[in-house]
Amino acid sequence: MSRQVKHIGILGAGLVGALLSIYLRKRGYKVSMFEKRADIRKAGNESGRSINLALSRRGIKALKEVGVFDEVSKILLPMEGRMMHGVDGQLTFQPYGKEGQFINSVSRGKLNEILISKAEEVGVELNFEHTSKNVSLDNTHVEFATPEKNITHQFDLIFGSDGAFSQMRQAMVGTNRYNYEQYYIPHGYKELTIPPTESGDFAIASNALHIWPRGKYMLIALPNLDKSFTCTLFFPFEGTPSFESLQTPEQVSAFFSETFPDSLEYIKNIGEEYFKNPTSSLVTIKCFPWVKNNCVLIGDAAHAIVPFYGQGMNAGFEDCFVLNKLLEEYSDDWDKALPLYEEMRKVDADAISDLALHNFVEMRDLVADEKFLVQKKIEAMLHEKFPDQWIPLYSMVTFSDMRYSDALKTGKKQQTIMDEIMSRPGILENWQQLDSHLIIDKLKAF
Amino acid sequence: MSRQVKHIGILGAGLVGALLSIYLRKRGYKVSMFEKRADIRKAGNESGRSINLALSRRGIKALKEVGVFDEVSKILLPMEGRMMHGVDGQLTFQPYGKEGQFINSVSRGKLNEILISKAEEVGVELNFEHTSKNVSLDNTHVEFATPEKNITHQFDLIFGSDGAFSQMRQAMVGTNRYNYEQYYIPHGYKELTIPPTESGDFAIASNALHIWPRGKYMLIALPNLDKSFTCTLFFPFEGTPSFESLQTPEQVSAFFSETFPDSLEYIKNIGEEYFKNPTSSLVTIKCFPWVKNNCVLIGDAAHAIVPFYGQGMNAGFEDCFVLNKLLEEYSDDWDKALPLYEEMRKVDADAISDLALHNFVEMRDLVADEKFLVQKKIEAMLHEKFPDQWIPLYSMVTFSDMRYSDALKTGKKQQTIMDEIMSRPGILENWQQLDSHLIIDKLKAF
Repeated sequence: MSRQVKHIGILGAGLVGALLSIYLRKRGYKVSMFEKRADIRKAGNESGRSINLALSRRGIKALKEVGVFDEVSKILLPMEGRMMHGVDGQLTFQPYGKEGQFINSVSRGKLNEILISKAEEVGVELNFEHTSKNVSLDNTHVEFATPEKNITHQFDLIFGSDGAFSQMRQAMVGTNRYNYEQYYIPHGYKELTIPPTESGDFAIASNALHIWPRGKYMLIALPNLDKSFTCTLFFPFEGTPSFESLQTPEQVSAFFSETFPDSLEYIKNIGEEYFKNPTSSLVTIKCFPWVKNNCVLIGDAAHAIVPFYGQGMNAGFEDCFVLNKLLEEYSDDWDKALPLYEEMRKVDADAISDLALHNFVEMRDLVADEKFLVQKKIEAMLHEKFPDQWIPLYSMVTFSDMRYSDALKTGKKQQTIMDEIMSRPGILENWQQLDSHLIIDKLKAF
Repeated sequence: MSRQVKHIGILGAGLVGALLSIYLRKRGYKVSMFEKRADIRKAGNESGRSINLALSRRGIKALKEVGVFDEVSKILLPMEGRMMHGVDGQLTFQPYGKEGQFINSVSRGKLNEILISKAEEVGVELNFEHTSKNVSLDNTHVEFATPEKNITHQFDLIFGSDGAFSQMRQAMVGTNRYNYEQYYIPHGYKELTIPPTESGDFAIASNALHIWPRGKYMLIALPNLDKSFTCTLFFPFEGTPSFESLQTPEQVSAFFSETFPDSLEYIKNIGEEYFKNPTSSLVTIKCFPWVKNNCVLIGDAAHAIVPFYGQGMNAGFEDCFVLNKLLEEYSDDWDKALPLYEEMRKVDADAISDLALHNFVEMRDLVADEKFLVQKKIEAMLHEKFPDQWIPLYSMVTFSDMRYSDALKTGKKQQTIMDEIMSRPGILENWQQLDSHLIIDKLKAF
């Protein structure tokens, strides 16, 4: 195959599609981007989802590379750690990293608007209300439905950044020897709101991601620019308690006042909002290959993950960054860059996918566990003393740009060492007397 | 949900569909079965695949239950063990089980014909050349394309026994929260033939499954009633050597004479046959749930597996047997039987699926390993002395009807014990001095 690429089509103007379009336009390609929704920047349009996301190192790096971070930085709210809410209302703060390290709450909608405006500014051709009905992997063309008519566009190369339910991937799944998995966890989620106080301030600390960890489920809250919080209840679909078992406003109120009592000081009209807002499911998608002829998957279309590591968007942005670096390295020889892109990113996407699934257990359960918190303190101490030799897993994923797959591997070694340490008698009391040199030597020798 | 079931539709008249139709008709239901191919019993029709399968305990039990085994038994060829062919042409025989235990080579086509005739005999309505185009999970109806026209049929309950690429499953995959995985191993397969000798006899021993194990790939051969053998080359699609790397008859001949030299005494015109016959892929399908409203998956449609444990057909037949037992137990209350069917069989299908993938490594590689063969001898010795307390994994799967999931669990315990034993110095020489009581006690105490 020898690809001559001048005109690139991008399906989906979500976060990853929009950022990708900027990267590719800046490399000199003619770029046409297609989005099924109307232009979210126009008044009256809902931005689709009110969810806020956590932007961290990898995403920031990818935004900086195309000069769009300065504008993005204005809409960020730093979160320096987790604020755990006990059933008794007691608060415990656990920093995410070292002093000065934080993740950023950002509105998906507002970030998307910035990226689309930047895309337009650099000369990406924008097409809204274009729903892709059929992607031809053989002819590199797409049939779109628009409000007026159906239309087919042909490209030299097409990117599918069309999300977890990608049309392009759908076409790939039907081809021979295509590996594919869609996995739904038994939990769904529902968004709720903590409005600003009457005096117009944040109702709870704005510099933290709030968690009400309750073992099998949890409530979380991230701050918004308007001083409200978006809360998300992650909750089983079936069983007791579950979305299925709570059927009336009274049951919901009773459940919240028993389980998340302090949240009711802030969430107004829980009974009403609970039933007004939809319940959504949480899917993990794995597939391979990501490249078929001249069609390429990227972002959620290639690797949708659950949100529990706050890395879905960051991983998608990193896809763009890595692809761009490969194009740079191989002078825009797509025949060289694309196989490396899918090979490298597949391994890393699989790693962050597994980490994200595992982190749900950590967030909803372990963060309320004393032993777990002591382990975090030991690891923070090791990181403090040996900043380059012991980087806690969360920091490798969130505050570094080492490959996700390397972070996962190192994290497993660290966990084996920590398991042994945490099994020592009296460790909860004596942990400050640990010989940290010995521990570092163990990790090196692993 | 309260199901009133009188008329049952079955999609696919393959092995599992045909057997299921007999079971259900015998329970008194009106049963209509639909098959996209023409009637394989009519002259001039290809049976689709020339492949032969290995029928063993579970399948036989399911056939006996509806009184069809006597006729099937006439077309079986017993295989008492594996006959390994070394590169030097040396033969090593390894029995599958105890004296008198064997698996049975059977022609998929001939077995299917017997089952379809039996279905017809007991009053199943047969519809050939009916291709299901659309399965409505909500309305329990199916649109069929026939040579004359399109037609829609409605049922009280529909079974999808329509194989690895099931139309019914396709409809289910598109519903919310449906878990699905299709996984292709990197190997494909190609069938070849060893014809009878000029004097009309089997060219090689007919009472064995022949294997040419070569590490990353293998050739196998199963006997046919006409005294030929069907050989199957399991071979990587890519790499060296692979289906991709062998491009000319000369390359194929050279590869076979180097790698499977003795096979060329029997396979005629390898260069020609190799390129005439198709190369097929090998898929594993996992999905859940198997029941959506009044639509039910069974056999390969629910759990396609790779062929390396010889259990695909046996597992599908066991699905029918278990479902029938549940209907018996719950007096044909489908609302009780179906949830138990999918719950029990899912766990067991996952187990045999994993066992089948693992057994490829055993067949193509380990059977040529001295240590592995000694382990087999030790396990045979344990089984001989303690027939009920140590049953080798292969025997639990093949010669018993214990649940696949229990076989897998017990097999893992046994392997842990055997790993330790096989790591002892001098074990290859001293294995006959092992204290078998101690080993049995270990397994009990696990």
